[in-house]
Amino acid sequence: MTRATIARIVRMKAINCAKIAGIRRSFSVASILNANRAITYRSPGDPASILTALTYPSLPPPAPHSVNVRFILSPVNPADINVVEGVYPSKPSPDQSLIGTTLFVGGNEGLAEVTEIGSEVIGLQKGDRVVMGGQQLGTWASARTLLAEDVVKVPEEISEVGGATITVNPPTAYNMIHDFVDLKEGDWLVQNGANSAVGQMVIQIAARKGLKTLNFVRSRDDLESLKRHLTNLGATQILTYDDLQDKTLREKVKEWTAGKPIRLMLNCVGGRDTTAMTRFLGEDAHLVSYGAMSKQPLSLPTSAFIFKNLTCHGFWQSRWYKQRTREEREGLFKRLAAMKLQEPEHEILTIPADINDDAATERVRDAVRKLGQGQHGKKVLLKIEQLAE
Amino acid sequence: MTRATIARIVRMKAINCAKIAGIRRSFSVASILNANRAITYRSPGDPASILTALTYPSLPPPAPHSVNVRFILSPVNPADINVVEGVYPSKPSPDQSLIGTTLFVGGNEGLAEVTEIGSEVIGLQKGDRVVMGGQQLGTWASARTLLAEDVVKVPEEISEVGGATITVNPPTAYNMIHDFVDLKEGDWLVQNGANSAVGQMVIQIAARKGLKTLNFVRSRDDLESLKRHLTNLGATQILTYDDLQDKTLREKVKEWTAGKPIRLMLNCVGGRDTTAMTRFLGEDAHLVSYGAMSKQPLSLPTSAFIFKNLTCHGFWQSRWYKQRTREEREGLFKRLAAMKLQEPEHEILTIPADINDDAATERVRDAVRKLGQGQHGKKVLLKIEQLAE
Repeated sequence: MTRATIARIVRMKAINCAKIAGIRRSFSVASILNANRAITYRSPGDPASILTALTYPSLPPPAPHSVNVRFILSPVNPADINVVEGVYPSKPSPDQSLIGTTLFVGGNEGLAEVTEIGSEVIGLQKGDRVVMGGQQLGTWASARTLLAEDVVKVPEEISEVGGATITVNPPTAYNMIHDFVDLKEGDWLVQNGANSAVGQMVIQIAARKGLKTLNFVRSRDDLESLKRHLTNLGATQILTYDDLQDKTLREKVKEWTAGKPIRLMLNCVGGRDTTAMTRFLGEDAHLVSYGAMSKQPLSLPTSAFIFKNLTCHGFWQSRWYKQRTREEREGLFKRLAAMKLQEPEHEILTIPADINDDAATERVRDAVRKLGQGQHGKKVLLKIEQLAE
Repeated sequence: MTRATIARIVRMKAINCAKIAGIRRSFSVASILNANRAITYRSPGDPASILTALTYPSLPPPAPHSVNVRFILSPVNPADINVVEGVYPSKPSPDQSLIGTTLFVGGNEGLAEVTEIGSEVIGLQKGDRVVMGGQQLGTWASARTLLAEDVVKVPEEISEVGGATITVNPPTAYNMIHDFVDLKEGDWLVQNGANSAVGQMVIQIAARKGLKTLNFVRSRDDLESLKRHLTNLGATQILTYDDLQDKTLREKVKEWTAGKPIRLMLNCVGGRDTTAMTRFLGEDAHLVSYGAMSKQPLSLPTSAFIFKNLTCHGFWQSRWYKQRTREEREGLFKRLAAMKLQEPEHEILTIPADINDDAATERVRDAVRKLGQGQHGKKVLLKIEQLAE
């Protein structure tokens, strides 16, 4: 039996136990019928029309291999929107545990506190702060029952916002810097989308390792203030895509790098500008793509592969998690916490206990609508209050 | 001192020794003034206008670390033409050894026989058959003095044509099949340009390893005869780029492969058809490019990198040689010889001893002109006769 098969069986047993526990619960005096709230949908579609707040009872005691958690903060990431739309490769599992009807709970990332432990759970305690070790577990909720193997403890020194946003962007940046090229202090990397959430993490993590960064951003009115912000984070050089038209740029880059070949490029844009950026790469370079904001393909001259030995990869943090052990995940979070990275700019959207589901639904749909229109510059973090303890 | 530096110093000493030996030679009764002939040029340009046959004296005895060789057959490869044009990344070194004037000798590949050994040479004997271990050594000649480290012995069982063509196409095919994905018997690979010299080697080597090949070729009048030829070499399935329009093709491929994911794609074409071919690839696949016959870039959706974990590489046999030891090179040739691969279709262009340089020049330029117009379907192998022994 493979590990994956065993994990699947354990998971199914846990779900069955939870169901049995759920049935028992309905006869229990201790259960509170409207204790919790989650942001849910019944089938994929436009998030601004379908996301619905739903109250549900207090959680039954967890099955032997599960834990109950209370969510502290749960980000609304761009990929979460794509999941609700049904256009993202990671699909959530339909859920029956909340109200007995099949639905999906939104959200992939979140910081939670363990409130109750199953009898067979090892290595977790009540009060531990955890993040999600599995994908698409439904974090837009006040409380959930999760398999113990699906949560990972985070270091205590990390802030609530830092913890809530530690599973996607910082590890993406960290792993892309470490997994493809063995960079030494003083080496350079080049990236586009440098002011994206990942891009800003790349700048910070690179700076802490003594790496130099050549950063590309879109031209804009407040370019100087963006440059100041990125420089404060540790960026070495900041250019705009318009600068790619400058014929002398290659010479300038050579001067900055003192002729040292650049061997790592990180790409979340694609299209023509990305192709143009590859001319700054030296031999044996690696181009790692983790996004395609231009919605254009990645187009490269074959000669770069053959004669300059360019290698192109993709990076997806979800795959990384699937292939790594709990120890590796915890180790990664420890290293990230130790770096004391600056929290992303954010705003917290509280869904208070004292409004009804319709009002809560409106607040969430409104936020999602603004996100879709690019009106939110900052990361939105949901704080869904429990209705009763 | 690095290995490369040492090698460079040894090489320069050998060249100096050869020059001194050359000066001595002009006073020696034994030297024959018009013993040899080479196809040369003074600076890069149009091969059909500048390649020039040139006679030169018998070779002086080789310096301590060098050997004299007599060429048996020397291919005219497409890349050789690009080198003469000055548009290929590998540049030949200018040569003064033949007539004292700086010129270039064409040709990168060739089978030769060792005729004389320097006093310090170990591991080579008179009569050994060798191929070039270095790049751009100038093989379009009847005889040359070469550094012993620049030649590699070939197994005795291999034919003259097989030996003359063993350093570029068969190793390119062999290494691309072995270096990127650990393929097991019954696994599939997909390639375009399947009837190219490398493509035919891929088919043969894959078949000998029990691998299945999905081969794409251009549509043509004599498609059925080409299909028969490739099937005889061991091709599993043969399609044309026109077949890529067929919406049901993906299902057919799934049937052929019994749903087994294809994890290796070899590309010498580029452009739109190549992009379309990647839809047959499974997760964690590697796309290896070794040519760009369409002269179009390689354009791929970023999602293939991120969510299907596609990796794109280039392959250049010249780089492989630079990074490998003599033992690894000889080992590769032994494995290739043991496979008894079918010789490429070829014709031998003899430059006979009894014509003068002007006539020899005309024959070579004429052949090169035909090659440029695509009139030669077969590989052309030069056999430049010695004028005197």
